[in-house]
Amino acid sequence: MAGEFDLIERYFAHLSPVRDDLRLGIGDDAALVSVPPGHDLAIAVDTMVAGVHFPVDTDPQAIGHKALAVNLSDLAAMGAEPTWALLALTLPEADEAWLAAFAAGFGRLARESGIALIGGDTTQGPLTITVTVHGRVPAGQALTRAGAQPGDAIYVSGGLGAAAAALALREADVARDALQACRQRLDYPEPRLALGRALRGLASAAIDISDGLLADLGHLCRAGGVGAGIDVDAVPRHPALAQLVARDDAAWYDWPLAGGDDYELCFTAPAAAQSRVEAVAESTGIPLTRFGEITPGEGLVCRHADGSAFRPGAGGYQHFVRQS
Amino acid sequence: MAGEFDLIERYFAHLSPVRDDLRLGIGDDAALVSVPPGHDLAIAVDTMVAGVHFPVDTDPQAIGHKALAVNLSDLAAMGAEPTWALLALTLPEADEAWLAAFAAGFGRLARESGIALIGGDTTQGPLTITVTVHGRVPAGQALTRAGAQPGDAIYVSGGLGAAAAALALREADVARDALQACRQRLDYPEPRLALGRALRGLASAAIDISDGLLADLGHLCRAGGVGAGIDVDAVPRHPALAQLVARDDAAWYDWPLAGGDDYELCFTAPAAAQSRVEAVAESTGIPLTRFGEITPGEGLVCRHADGSAFRPGAGGYQHFVRQS
Repeated sequence: MAGEFDLIERYFAHLSPVRDDLRLGIGDDAALVSVPPGHDLAIAVDTMVAGVHFPVDTDPQAIGHKALAVNLSDLAAMGAEPTWALLALTLPEADEAWLAAFAAGFGRLARESGIALIGGDTTQGPLTITVTVHGRVPAGQALTRAGAQPGDAIYVSGGLGAAAAALALREADVARDALQACRQRLDYPEPRLALGRALRGLASAAIDISDGLLADLGHLCRAGGVGAGIDVDAVPRHPALAQLVARDDAAWYDWPLAGGDDYELCFTAPAAAQSRVEAVAESTGIPLTRFGEITPGEGLVCRHADGSAFRPGAGGYQHFVRQS
Repeated sequence: MAGEFDLIERYFAHLSPVRDDLRLGIGDDAALVSVPPGHDLAIAVDTMVAGVHFPVDTDPQAIGHKALAVNLSDLAAMGAEPTWALLALTLPEADEAWLAAFAAGFGRLARESGIALIGGDTTQGPLTITVTVHGRVPAGQALTRAGAQPGDAIYVSGGLGAAAAALALREADVARDALQACRQRLDYPEPRLALGRALRGLASAAIDISDGLLADLGHLCRAGGVGAGIDVDAVPRHPALAQLVARDDAAWYDWPLAGGDDYELCFTAPAAAQSRVEAVAESTGIPLTRFGEITPGEGLVCRHADGSAFRPGAGGYQHFVRQS
């Protein structure tokens, strides 16, 4: 098996960009890298398991993209610039077509984001992919989950709910183009790296949306010892949602608020910084929508645009919401 | 499941040492660390799959130890000082007794080696453990596989073959104490971190022994574009082997030469540096045995102490040996 799995490494040895901070890459006991003075490193790891995090029959190119993308999204949330990745790939068998497609998806995103694959391990077993990513950030300038202050405005990038729609409507015979757009968001999430960097020195706290907007905003609030009041109608929906669900359907709220897998950034900034946030939206070309405000105390209070209380549907996120 | 797996993180949040180069640990989108000026980072990742790399019923404390130890062994081979680790743990279920034992094994070695657990991911699925480790090394002083020169002496630390004996004799009714000693080596390998650091500026090349001495020496030779001549009788055996196998048995050779899982260091040094190597053995308390010499050309030539050709047994390592 060892020979068969050595072969796998060929698919990955040359697919990532050349970086001058890489002293020794794949092929020794460890990689050697250097960090420029005045920079910290951000380091994150995420695992995807077949049958748990994605259906077993998912296009391997999408799996390769997403395994890297969800990790890059963590770097985006820290305001870090991607540098190096390691890939631990556990495979039932050395299927060359699968590997070529996986490597193509992983490699394209690696090149686009400037991250070099510097090491890895290939083992035999149930399909599991663990990616460790590194990014650098000027010392002291990283964004974290902590730091939101009462009165800060709460923003989110892009439009939410498309990944949840794609999962919920996988087998449905509905608006084909809209569903395809949602499927694209589920399979090929785009980490908001440029946005994260642009928010250095502006955002008071940031997190990426993997578990769902309310769950992740809840993490951000707990880290800062604060609460939040949000307008559930102001939360930006992915444009395809309007073609897939009526506005009085529970899914109109469930998907963007609790769906997860969106990989947008949720962040807070002082209310007085609104024009700077707008300038970031302009310069990055990424829509940034204000949908709530940080409050003293704890918990999330969700209201409709008309001020009436929001009652969560069956989305399993009732415990995030504090009734007031 | 999310809540159940959040709980798991409690087992790991407080088990590692405090380091002043850690700016932000477990609990944000990424950890933040700093690297002192004049140092490079060594980074490695290894995966262990239940049923492939260890029997499913292995003591979870041993699994926790070994998952970290095999990675620390890679840092040892680079001459690096361990700094930070990330743990990606995929588990079929959140079994608290299993987790407590796993964390105890992982945590004890983490504290002993000064490595801080700075991040991780816990997911549901077939038992798979991926550890990413980081170590620092003064810039330009890392040991690598490349660099061995014809005429260099070849050394190995400790005694080999015990892990292979433990695997081969798992069910056997033989010398109980000797087998127990071998089992200990299989389950609780000791990464040679102090040795690796002591070899900076002395070893011309180094590798840790995970695949087996001949296989790993073969990697070292290929990386340097050289060959090797070795005395198979001079290769140091673990002391327990003499009680478990006769010297005319194939296993007397197979286990130490091809067994793997020893996690000793194999390294080369100029022949003139013999006294410096002896001083390192003295200062670290780790036996270092010279068993061969780097040659021009390629391949490994194996001879007995009397100069006769060595014929490999059934250990599956014939392809490493060049007949001459």
